[in-house]
Amino acid sequence: MKTIDVFIVMGSASDASKAEPAIAALKGFGVPFDAAVCSAHRSPKKLAALVASAEKRGCLVFIALAGKAAHLPGVVAAHTAKPVIGVPIDTPMMGLDSLLSIAQMPPGVPVATVGVDAGKNAALLAIQMLALSDAKLAKKLADYKAALGADVAKQNAETRKKLRIPKLP
Amino acid sequence: MKTIDVFIVMGSASDASKAEPAIAALKGFGVPFDAAVCSAHRSPKKLAALVASAEKRGCLVFIALAGKAAHLPGVVAAHTAKPVIGVPIDTPMMGLDSLLSIAQMPPGVPVATVGVDAGKNAALLAIQMLALSDAKLAKKLADYKAALGADVAKQNAETRKKLRIPKLP
Amino acid sequence: MKTIDVFIVMGSASDASKAEPAIAALKGFGVPFDAAVCSAHRSPKKLAALVASAEKRGCLVFIALAGKAAHLPGVVAAHTAKPVIGVPIDTPMMGLDSLLSIAQMPPGVPVATVGVDAGKNAALLAIQMLALSDAKLAKKLADYKAALGADVAKQNAETRKKLRIPKLP
Amino acid sequence: MKTIDVFIVMGSASDASKAEPAIAALKGFGVPFDAAVCSAHRSPKKLAALVASAEKRGCLVFIALAGKAAHLPGVVAAHTAKPVIGVPIDTPMMGLDSLLSIAQMPPGVPVATVGVDAGKNAALLAIQMLALSDAKLAKKLADYKAALGADVAKQNAETRKKLRIPKLP
Amino acid sequence: MKTIDVFIVMGSASDASKAEPAIAALKGFGVPFDAAVCSAHRSPKKLAALVASAEKRGCLVFIALAGKAAHLPGVVAAHTAKPVIGVPIDTPMMGLDSLLSIAQMPPGVPVATVGVDAGKNAALLAIQMLALSDAKLAKKLADYKAALGADVAKQNAETRKKLRIPKLP
Amino acid sequence: MKTIDVFIVMGSASDASKAEPAIAALKGFGVPFDAAVCSAHRSPKKLAALVASAEKRGCLVFIALAGKAAHLPGVVAAHTAKPVIGVPIDTPMMGLDSLLSIAQMPPGVPVATVGVDAGKNAALLAIQMLALSDAKLAKKLADYKAALGADVAKQNAETRKKLRIPKLP
Amino acid sequence: MKTIDVFIVMGSASDASKAEPAIAALKGFGVPFDAAVCSAHRSPKKLAALVASAEKRGCLVFIALAGKAAHLPGVVAAHTAKPVIGVPIDTPMMGLDSLLSIAQMPPGVPVATVGVDAGKNAALLAIQMLALSDAKLAKKLADYKAALGADVAKQNAETRKKLRIPKLP
Amino acid sequence: MKTIDVFIVMGSASDASKAEPAIAALKGFGVPFDAAVCSAHRSPKKLAALVASAEKRGCLVFIALAGKAAHLPGVVAAHTAKPVIGVPIDTPMMGLDSLLSIAQMPPGVPVATVGVDAGKNAALLAIQMLALSDAKLAKKLADYKAALGADVAKQNAETRKKLRIPKLP
Repeated sequence: MKTIDVFIVMGSASDASKAEPAIAALKGFGVPFDAAVCSAHRSPKKLAALVASAEKRGCLVFIALAGKAAHLPGVVAAHTAKPVIGVPIDTPMMGLDSLLSIAQMPPGVPVATVGVDAGKNAALLAIQMLALSDAKLAKKLADYKAALGADVAKQNAETRKKLRIPKLP
Repeated sequence: MKTIDVFIVMGSASDASKAEPAIAALKGFGVPFDAAVCSAHRSPKKLAALVASAEKRGCLVFIALAGKAAHLPGVVAAHTAKPVIGVPIDTPMMGLDSLLSIAQMPPGVPVATVGVDAGKNAALLAIQMLALSDAKLAKKLADYKAALGADVAKQNAETRKKLRIPKLP
Repeated sequence: MKTIDVFIVMGSASDASKAEPAIAALKGFGVPFDAAVCSAHRSPKKLAALVASAEKRGCLVFIALAGKAAHLPGVVAAHTAKPVIGVPIDTPMMGLDSLLSIAQMPPGVPVATVGVDAGKNAALLAIQMLALSDAKLAKKLADYKAALGADVAKQNAETRKKLRIPKLP
Repeated sequence: MKTIDVFIVMGSASDASKAEPAIAALKGFGVPFDAAVCSAHRSPKKLAALVASAEKRGCLVFIALAGKAAHLPGVVAAHTAKPVIGVPIDTPMMGLDSLLSIAQMPPGVPVATVGVDAGKNAALLAIQMLALSDAKLAKKLADYKAALGADVAKQNAETRKKLRIPKLP
Repeated sequence: MKTIDVFIVMGSASDASKAEPAIAALKGFGVPFDAAVCSAHRSPKKLAALVASAEKRGCLVFIALAGKAAHLPGVVAAHTAKPVIGVPIDTPMMGLDSLLSIAQMPPGVPVATVGVDAGKNAALLAIQMLALSDAKLAKKLADYKAALGADVAKQNAETRKKLRIPKLP
Repeated sequence: MKTIDVFIVMGSASDASKAEPAIAALKGFGVPFDAAVCSAHRSPKKLAALVASAEKRGCLVFIALAGKAAHLPGVVAAHTAKPVIGVPIDTPMMGLDSLLSIAQMPPGVPVATVGVDAGKNAALLAIQMLALSDAKLAKKLADYKAALGADVAKQNAETRKKLRIPKLP
Repeated sequence: MKTIDVFIVMGSASDASKAEPAIAALKGFGVPFDAAVCSAHRSPKKLAALVASAEKRGCLVFIALAGKAAHLPGVVAAHTAKPVIGVPIDTPMMGLDSLLSIAQMPPGVPVATVGVDAGKNAALLAIQMLALSDAKLAKKLADYKAALGADVAKQNAETRKKLRIPKLP
Repeated sequence: MKTIDVFIVMGSASDASKAEPAIAALKGFGVPFDAAVCSAHRSPKKLAALVASAEKRGCLVFIALAGKAAHLPGVVAAHTAKPVIGVPIDTPMMGLDSLLSIAQMPPGVPVATVGVDAGKNAALLAIQMLALSDAKLAKKLADYKAALGADVAKQNAETRKKLRIPKLP
């Protein structure tokens, strides 16, 4: 079994598309990870085993995506003392059910909640945590942050063109 | 260990006052029960054990009360095929977080959700389930239902008096 | 007239598609049932008669689906002491109107509320209730619950493939 | 039995204080009325009888007050073709449950919904309906409407004094 | 100028499709009406004039449809002592903005609020008001109410067929 | 009649306490103003006259405070082309009704909405508008903005003391 | 560098289409403006510089459009004492996240919030502010306001035709 | 200047009581920290400087508490690539404004959001992050997690006593 830094758990196969931006970001930063579908409600023992096995493989940060009564991140957090990042998935209730089910955890068992469908930000947050003790990753993050500004500048140029911002008299 | 029909689980000691109406109703109907505080997040293994042990004692229906990211009823339902009744506890978010965390369960693992802070109705629902195969209990329920109407009639008399409903000309 | 265990009531013909997963589940478990469209507001007397007639046919559990000002489950519960399961139907108000209209019942008259559009879970909950005194059904439920876990494992395998989870270095 | 123009139904004795402003307004306008506590869920047959009896006594408009899963106004409307005014009672869910349960009625069975706890406006709306064919009442309404403006002027004077609005330079 | 019983005001041309069911219902019952687009915000004086002119033409009930910051029904109610029915139009905010803007009127100036996009119910409510002093209209309403039940019975038959409700063993 | 720069309109005397911070801010900046209670619903003609009269007195900016179905700011905006600032007043619906009734205005008639109960910010916004063509006022605003930072520094010192922030080793 | 009266800031290129009605309105009124994409989170220093540079170019009013955790308007307001107009962009959360993030600013730093996606109203509000000291612009605004009424009259004529409002008997 | 691992920023002095549980937890775990009041809106430059200075002192994790339009955590995250934990403070809008303003960050700039008023969980999450590269802290966390379970057991004993759970027959 190989070493991993991040473990991504999806509550159902239908959450896979929302995990893709997280996976892309982890790959982009060269962070070793694994991902699985597992359910807090339909396979609870398997979930406990999965969390334990991921920890044995060196997993430092968990990312859990779930929708509606989104218990997955909280239940993962029940099984580990490692940081758990929760991603509320959008629902016909505009993700409000998912968001509240993930964010409103009781004292003692935090879940680091990101925005609805914010898989990419979940990965970036995990990378920020890993970068605390990984100078190389910290350097990549700094570069990424700088690139964000450059991307905004590019968006600015394109948008001004698209909107045909007038020359002022 | 004694036989029980209903097991009440509270997510925290602070939910005790909300369990009291459920306990009063079960006592009133003579239904053997037990109750415990256990947490889906802070004592997850204990919770699994508690559910298994309750089933061994003959438990037929579970009632779980929890607030905020109220995972307790759903996690109990993950560990048993018996009906689980969820009671959302009121919160600074007017119980909406609790209600959505309990009601919006994924396909395959239902939780029978009652209203916010509706401990009494949770017990009555459990009694309705038990009464399906218990004619004596069914008789008591029928009496209770008739008494509800009588109570409304009493409320009506008192309220008319209190409001001094005028004699019409 | 034939014997039934479950009676499904829809508030309107437009709820039929939401009743289908419930019907499929009941058929799958071999539970005898009947289903009808009846309205708490447009045919109130008919509804009372329907509930009484279903009880005479042996009905043990009611499932009522309704949307918006979803009074149907509560009004069914007013007419019977049998357990009533309420299914809030999705609406332009994201089902919040339906959910609150069904879940927030007054003390004395519970409705077992499941999630928005959760017809399948309504049927499973009814089956859980029936299984309390039907060992054969209880066995089927246990098999179903085990199959849930197997299905998650299958989803896991497919999703890992779809996401091309990388071999770790 | 005496003649009435308006019948007020409360879902529970606890709604009495919210009915008082309605009663005060009806008395102020000299409109004959009666009021009762009756429940759509706990005394459904009694409710149907009450509505029928009120109609026999000449009742033209119904006012129904209820909270949470506030089915009372809708169920009254199911039993009569007379206009039904619904008053959502405030709840720990800020009355949103009551408001949606009353306003979101299906096509064919309207309820004239007023604001949360707006018992007084319910009475005024009933009076507006009665005044359509009662010139004396219409005159009183016109006077009332004029008095509203005068009251605002009085509030204006008092508030300016209280706020010590400064003389301008 | 001809006599009218009901006046329909739309806040904008885009509300016309939501007014159509109201118009169809009024036509079906043979109620003379008129309809106009007028805005509380963009043509406030015109609106006051329109309300006054409608009253002169005999208008007994107003129906006002509006969305978002839906002030139209309330402002119409400010200009008349006749009953005003408000129809909240659906919006990207699921009509919650419209509903609250219409229902939550201050004491003294009620608006009879119906459900979101419930133009048909607005017309039926207006007809119920008119029928208080119009025996012919009352008769039609009673027929309509009976037909509602018949329609439910028809829906029932069709739905049972569509769902292929099984013959029970 | 004296000259004013700002006119404050309250929907009811009960809004007076919420107007006080606005009045205090205007006095602090030496801005001439007047204030009145007037209702969009109970004294609509008076309101139109009041707005016109304020404009004649030189009024440049309107501030309107209102709660629930808070039409006042929008109706003021209907009567003037001057900027109108709307202050949603807190309600049992946590001000959401007021906020949506004020912010969601139709195209063509904007209202500059501030936060719930944010009377002080309404005044500051009015002052920002006036300062666009009043260099003295602009200077005062710049000083005020600098003082905000100084106040934060003071809060910082006091809070660190109160929290007994430890000397680090 | 040219002189501008209004500066429009978008939080992302995806907000451009929501800025277009604002740009069209400013052009229609002949108000000199500039527009840029800049992010409070991804290019914070650039944003501060942009605000300062816009002020140097004479900018009097800022318009900031942003969605979700819409900090842009508030952060612009942190950097200037000029009026800042915030436009909440629609989101999968129906713009409620954007609206609350913009409207609920702390005391001392107001943002003039308009409705969700109300770019046009943002421009009109800016024009109203500029017109306070620009008689020509004030004249154009008065004409625009008159045209609003005319447009309503036109909508009225077309809608009556479309709805085939019947000739009354 | 001393070394710190965690920096706590409060948006206003009124947030101090909500920071206390975070401070108590950090002290309990022996984590060096500092805390300050600073505002994203009233002292934006100071905030940027504060973040930079904290990083120079070795700060690895930021905790930011804020209410209403709670921009503080997002703006801190704009200035650092270190993980930022956001604590939404309860408000008259039940903290929904704070929660959405903090959680719904744009791609590229995550904030690790905890529940409303969940200062203690913010500290525990920070400790989890630090423990990734601090074995001693990891040991303390494991002990803390074990103690959580013990505390639940104690709550269970006390609650059973308090509720006088009956001996079963």
